[in-house]
Amino acid sequence: MAKLKWGMIGGGEGSQIGPAHRLGAQADGLFEFAAGALDHRADAGREYAQRLGIAADRAYGDWREMLAGESGRDDRVDLVTVATPNATHFEITKAFLEAGFNVLCEKPMTMSVEEGEEIVRVVEATGKICAVNYCYSAYPMVRQARAMVRAGEIGNVRLVVSNFSHGHHGDATDADNPRVRWRYDPAMAGVSGQFADCGIHALHMASFICDDEVEKLSADFASTIPSRELEDDAMVNFRLTGGTVGRLWTSSVAIGRQHGFEIQVFGETGGLRWASEQPNQLIYTPVGGRTQIIEKGEGGLHADAQRLSRVSIAHPEGFPLAVANIYCDLADAIRGETRDGLPNAQAGVRSMAAVHGAVASAKADGAWVDARPPMFR
Amino acid sequence: MAKLKWGMIGGGEGSQIGPAHRLGAQADGLFEFAAGALDHRADAGREYAQRLGIAADRAYGDWREMLAGESGRDDRVDLVTVATPNATHFEITKAFLEAGFNVLCEKPMTMSVEEGEEIVRVVEATGKICAVNYCYSAYPMVRQARAMVRAGEIGNVRLVVSNFSHGHHGDATDADNPRVRWRYDPAMAGVSGQFADCGIHALHMASFICDDEVEKLSADFASTIPSRELEDDAMVNFRLTGGTVGRLWTSSVAIGRQHGFEIQVFGETGGLRWASEQPNQLIYTPVGGRTQIIEKGEGGLHADAQRLSRVSIAHPEGFPLAVANIYCDLADAIRGETRDGLPNAQAGVRSMAAVHGAVASAKADGAWVDARPPMFR
Amino acid sequence: MAKLKWGMIGGGEGSQIGPAHRLGAQADGLFEFAAGALDHRADAGREYAQRLGIAADRAYGDWREMLAGESGRDDRVDLVTVATPNATHFEITKAFLEAGFNVLCEKPMTMSVEEGEEIVRVVEATGKICAVNYCYSAYPMVRQARAMVRAGEIGNVRLVVSNFSHGHHGDATDADNPRVRWRYDPAMAGVSGQFADCGIHALHMASFICDDEVEKLSADFASTIPSRELEDDAMVNFRLTGGTVGRLWTSSVAIGRQHGFEIQVFGETGGLRWASEQPNQLIYTPVGGRTQIIEKGEGGLHADAQRLSRVSIAHPEGFPLAVANIYCDLADAIRGETRDGLPNAQAGVRSMAAVHGAVASAKADGAWVDARPPMFR
Amino acid sequence: MAKLKWGMIGGGEGSQIGPAHRLGAQADGLFEFAAGALDHRADAGREYAQRLGIAADRAYGDWREMLAGESGRDDRVDLVTVATPNATHFEITKAFLEAGFNVLCEKPMTMSVEEGEEIVRVVEATGKICAVNYCYSAYPMVRQARAMVRAGEIGNVRLVVSNFSHGHHGDATDADNPRVRWRYDPAMAGVSGQFADCGIHALHMASFICDDEVEKLSADFASTIPSRELEDDAMVNFRLTGGTVGRLWTSSVAIGRQHGFEIQVFGETGGLRWASEQPNQLIYTPVGGRTQIIEKGEGGLHADAQRLSRVSIAHPEGFPLAVANIYCDLADAIRGETRDGLPNAQAGVRSMAAVHGAVASAKADGAWVDARPPMFR
Repeated sequence: MAKLKWGMIGGGEGSQIGPAHRLGAQADGLFEFAAGALDHRADAGREYAQRLGIAADRAYGDWREMLAGESGRDDRVDLVTVATPNATHFEITKAFLEAGFNVLCEKPMTMSVEEGEEIVRVVEATGKICAVNYCYSAYPMVRQARAMVRAGEIGNVRLVVSNFSHGHHGDATDADNPRVRWRYDPAMAGVSGQFADCGIHALHMASFICDDEVEKLSADFASTIPSRELEDDAMVNFRLTGGTVGRLWTSSVAIGRQHGFEIQVFGETGGLRWASEQPNQLIYTPVGGRTQIIEKGEGGLHADAQRLSRVSIAHPEGFPLAVANIYCDLADAIRGETRDGLPNAQAGVRSMAAVHGAVASAKADGAWVDARPPMFR
Repeated sequence: MAKLKWGMIGGGEGSQIGPAHRLGAQADGLFEFAAGALDHRADAGREYAQRLGIAADRAYGDWREMLAGESGRDDRVDLVTVATPNATHFEITKAFLEAGFNVLCEKPMTMSVEEGEEIVRVVEATGKICAVNYCYSAYPMVRQARAMVRAGEIGNVRLVVSNFSHGHHGDATDADNPRVRWRYDPAMAGVSGQFADCGIHALHMASFICDDEVEKLSADFASTIPSRELEDDAMVNFRLTGGTVGRLWTSSVAIGRQHGFEIQVFGETGGLRWASEQPNQLIYTPVGGRTQIIEKGEGGLHADAQRLSRVSIAHPEGFPLAVANIYCDLADAIRGETRDGLPNAQAGVRSMAAVHGAVASAKADGAWVDARPPMFR
Repeated sequence: MAKLKWGMIGGGEGSQIGPAHRLGAQADGLFEFAAGALDHRADAGREYAQRLGIAADRAYGDWREMLAGESGRDDRVDLVTVATPNATHFEITKAFLEAGFNVLCEKPMTMSVEEGEEIVRVVEATGKICAVNYCYSAYPMVRQARAMVRAGEIGNVRLVVSNFSHGHHGDATDADNPRVRWRYDPAMAGVSGQFADCGIHALHMASFICDDEVEKLSADFASTIPSRELEDDAMVNFRLTGGTVGRLWTSSVAIGRQHGFEIQVFGETGGLRWASEQPNQLIYTPVGGRTQIIEKGEGGLHADAQRLSRVSIAHPEGFPLAVANIYCDLADAIRGETRDGLPNAQAGVRSMAAVHGAVASAKADGAWVDARPPMFR
Repeated sequence: MAKLKWGMIGGGEGSQIGPAHRLGAQADGLFEFAAGALDHRADAGREYAQRLGIAADRAYGDWREMLAGESGRDDRVDLVTVATPNATHFEITKAFLEAGFNVLCEKPMTMSVEEGEEIVRVVEATGKICAVNYCYSAYPMVRQARAMVRAGEIGNVRLVVSNFSHGHHGDATDADNPRVRWRYDPAMAGVSGQFADCGIHALHMASFICDDEVEKLSADFASTIPSRELEDDAMVNFRLTGGTVGRLWTSSVAIGRQHGFEIQVFGETGGLRWASEQPNQLIYTPVGGRTQIIEKGEGGLHADAQRLSRVSIAHPEGFPLAVANIYCDLADAIRGETRDGLPNAQAGVRSMAAVHGAVASAKADGAWVDARPPMFR
């Protein structure tokens, strides 16, 4: 099977996100890194792209140049990854979709709900793929959890508890560090800090595994480091369409938690637990029975979990390969095999509506608000 | 040192709570089981008491008989444990305090805030000891956590997350089991189900370790099994007097969680984590440093943690000895050595105000309410 | 049920073992502490015994005085606990058994195999109970493991791996501390250091759970701190009567291991794992199936595990109550209800033979030796 | 930096090892998959290679054809991976080295010690790189452990305990499954079963982290499933050159252990613990201090651990990227930057000597044998 052609916007030298996507796209030999506009400094971007093996004529100075260049080629890229600063995601994603490219956009897909709805409409109009990089949902055992819920193995879901809390912004003496500070500054981060940064992964995961949408929510935000304008800790209660009760805690001042993203799903006939620091196990308890450890790679897993597992049981696979799983699903989707686990533009706009809803609720002392984008009400 | 004399009301044959208190009172040889009114069936209670070694004249038929009998003796009991049905705690506790006895009351101390305030006034008037059995707070490593907070070892506490969630009431087919059903029936349980049953332990613990009182709260209650009138799942956001942000999740339908009582405390310079299923370790992370495991019995622990540890490092001590620790503190207090870790009547009435506050907030869609008893506002 | 009368030899003021036995005997209200010769200093022992509530005429100056005193009484103690220095166990235990007392002896029961065989013969002749305090075997989940093996739930046992390694003697700068040094000095500790101290618990446990006896063994001893004459680290390979392969590692220089006593049992159709630091869970994996967590207190446990569990599921019980379980079994046995889980004199002499066998093997470069006492060959 | 050119022998369609190496070589964009002789069926191999994107003239029918073809090219591959059946490793590796290629050989490098010594001599003569795929040693936190030992952070190492035990061959009813059976059949597996298969990884790791060589050993082998000629369980005691005491347990019948490869290293001033199922943490305890969790990605790690970590703290990386780390080191080494962590031919022949030594010892009832290849005695 010939490799697909892949291009990237952003992810320049020294970024964390560039290597993550390059590994994700290339680990399984599915994509060839064929084009890029990697840096906001045009020359640096062109030079770096060529150092990474991209042909000179496809090492672009900016995304508009790349759009023009690729649009004119017969061997145009099959997929464009957008990994630029958040505020530019909308414009770039929209432009590439409209020009007929498939796009993988880093989260957030957009800054406003309106922009998000616009992307959904563009996707519908063009029929192109627009995925959003909620890569945690691509861990095999998360897919197993979702498949178990869908198969009714824990009955109707009564309750989902999804937390994503860490302590890496807990040092007040480091709060002015530019790599930290921007996340709590509305001028740069938008309306929300920690909830938009990490909490939204947890909310997406709750919706993803329960296979239901967030309907309404109530939020309590706190800036526990007073110099921060945006929240560094948030609690969000929510309800899914099927009536499932949701609890979501996210924090960046939870000192001692490293990557505390974990989800618990409780249904009528069983419970599930998954944690991102031990992603290769899914903990399952049937009602009235003993807790069991489901291992990635064991026999009899659901298809999506099997498909996205590369090595045999108890050989751990980690975060970079969860990103690679997104690219596996994308390669399949580009070739025409629908992968409904792939987070799409609708997931992107729903997340944006939830962020704006949570902000509004928190400002209104926790009043319950509709968390759906208008287009889905 | 002569043993103190101890009596018990309730805890009859077949109860779980009777053996727990007898072990707690006798394990360290501090109390002699001298009197009891153990059963609401007078004869059964008298007979059982004698089988347990109580003299016939102190094997009483009911608590009033015991009150009269003990009041008239020179060798009257030094301590009375009240382990009767919840609705009777107030009347019995009050009567014994007023007659000059020290009391250990099972939780809840009372059913209403007014009754709780009455107990506080009686305690002040009589000078007797009234403890409430928040026994989890007597685990040595919980005491260590509190001592560390008091000593400033994690700085001002920004955030506390206290969860007590289990799944033992998650089987809807078992919901009519009388041992389960009463907890969700207002006629028997009062205004709250799971929050009053388990959540209140978590709230007390948050206040206990942070050494601050709960000031206000906002609650989201759910009855995930629809036949239940009272909540089986609750999320409570709260604030402590010092400004600490609080998060509390409690559930009885979290299938797979056995005894999921765990607390995380996050301060300016460190974080702490403790879980009741592994009570002999306290997890500590200094800001910017590595997570450390503090072991019960290690050198250099704070005094309260050392005092309540019986066996050397890494020899686990469990729940029954946490109850015994309450009795250790009581024996000391009776002999005049103040043990400020002992949960007192003020803690009892504050819990009751929090329960009623949470119920009111939940009914008002999560509106924030004052969680303090009127007497402490 | 009237309390049984209990006496203790050794366990004076300041000892660790005294409180452990007093708690064990009294926690469940089964024994009354009626007599004692608690200290090698006669006056101190008499005074301390009275402070603990023992009548003056049963507060003895030494064990011979106690033997004479109790032998002459109608209300003589039902059980004597021997918690004196190791070298005296044989003489005292033998004397009390011959005088018709039941005895719980601290380990080691004797210093030599010959003495151990002598105790077995005395037990057979007198019909009295002689238990040895291998208290780890009294944890409920250890009893569950044994019952599962006996019931064939993991098939014939192929392999048992039993480790008891800690790091508390790993500090060479503390090696001359008298509380540490004696354990590695043959003049005080006998022929073996760490293997006799901790390893023997692990060997007993392997035999106990597998319900088979140790037949032969091969040992590799090391004194990793060169000043030590006796071993501080040992590996012992062994075979049980049924052919089960055994592996046992014990160390006192394993810095970072606190109380690393853990056992894994592998049969034809399943595996079991238990660890003393989390004693309330037993991990079970059926062949070809998922690992399950068996909780103390869950429904359907084997009788011995149920009987020795005091509080409901997931309320941890720890080391002191494992000791108390030995006393529960003793109380039953004294009243005529056989408790075959109680470690007896045969277990005591088998341990002694294994210690001497391991020493001989280690000296012979790991040659395999018969590990059975001559009387059981 | 232009990609290096890489070829593979073996790893045909349907193999597990093929994808693992392709991911390892390509994940970080360091190697281009340029040539291959992937299957013992020439046509199938050529066809599959082309499907994977290899040019037709470099899709070879067997290794000799590949050796001839690549030797004649200016753009010959920079590295050849040998992933063929074990018995062929020696011949192929030797041939490619002698023709001036760098080689990564799957373990075992050879079947005999003599062959292993021959490879060492060829490496010395040619100056080419010959690495052996002990990929567990390339986990970042294993490199951290080794660097800590080298830096003296735990003092001289007294004791190392290295276990690699699983239960995946524990089902006797599956013992005739060809994918299992061959491992215990001397005609196919050679002189050793489980020790050569898994144990040797554990032995290499012990030597790797302690930075010392295995000098002598004593082994106890067992075939717990009687139909097996070779051992499925083994215990090996050993000594390293510096005097470190070693313990190694390996089993394939340890039902319930999934990938139980874990190592504990105990020095004069601290202990370390690492487990392959949670490879991103290293547990460290300084003597007399508290156990600490060292996280992959935290600040201040040793250079080798930092270099091989792709994503930030607490984002797990797993087994496939440990293989990729071997390729990272190889790419650096090919470009002239020595990577002394790369397992080399000397490690390969030492392993072979240890396997043969253990077999001899086990046959001699555990007699201690010299475990060094003659060339290193």
